[in-house]
Amino acid sequence: MEPRISLITLGVKNLEKSLIFYRDGLGFPTTRKAEEGIVFFQTGGVCLALYPYEELAKDVSEDFVAPRSKFPGITIAHNVRTKEEVARVLELAERAGGKIEKPAQDVFWGGHSGYFSDPDGYLWEVAWGAFEFREDGSLNIT
Amino acid sequence: MEPRISLITLGVKNLEKSLIFYRDGLGFPTTRKAEEGIVFFQTGGVCLALYPYEELAKDVSEDFVAPRSKFPGITIAHNVRTKEEVARVLELAERAGGKIEKPAQDVFWGGHSGYFSDPDGYLWEVAWGAFEFREDGSLNIT
Repeated sequence: MEPRISLITLGVKNLEKSLIFYRDGLGFPTTRKAEEGIVFFQTGGVCLALYPYEELAKDVSEDFVAPRSKFPGITIAHNVRTKEEVARVLELAERAGGKIEKPAQDVFWGGHSGYFSDPDGYLWEVAWGAFEFREDGSLNIT
Repeated sequence: MEPRISLITLGVKNLEKSLIFYRDGLGFPTTRKAEEGIVFFQTGGVCLALYPYEELAKDVSEDFVAPRSKFPGITIAHNVRTKEEVARVLELAERAGGKIEKPAQDVFWGGHSGYFSDPDGYLWEVAWGAFEFREDGSLNIT
């Protein structure tokens, strides 16, 4: 198995609403339409997909269709190149219809970060510090 | 905001157990140890992180500490280059202590796929078809 994550798929309540949030609000590029039933965004390295929540659960098994808890257990991070960008991206997400769950602040690991939730409550951390960027925009973890 | 996902963090019950699953079982590269309290893996494009579930919830807000539902609403996909690799990767995950939730099979969108869950129940789809690979191993969605 090559160490690779190809796609992150978010199970969403309203595909059209989430498409508008990510495409028009955050500026993620896609040529897809909600009528196609699934939306893909080309992003740096990993692709983001939106798919109706129940259909995503059923794609695994009928057994997985269940009420959502408030905390899915997974967070997605968007790292930025300057400290100031953290607050700017959080404001952008709020204007787009997201909710700031934790305002931009200095954090215990020496960086600066905050969280917003998307229309379904999925959590994005916007973070600066700790890691160097590689040429393609991905992080150098090692 | 650049269209980029930098990190996916999974909130885990047992950091040592999950580290062993991903590092020794699936072969994801890392130099980190569980004693450091967080583990990062360098993967193609997006980095994978493991962090204790309650600490991850609290990193957002105390308000997010809640019991997990069976389906977190998010799936992670690992795409492979040949149809045969789907079953092979699922078997690898099972040998590593994961559970095959959906065996490799032809699926409605024309590809071949299956799902395994990791020690915390996070769902990985192993999929072939639909997308071309780019030179760096990421998918060409457009």
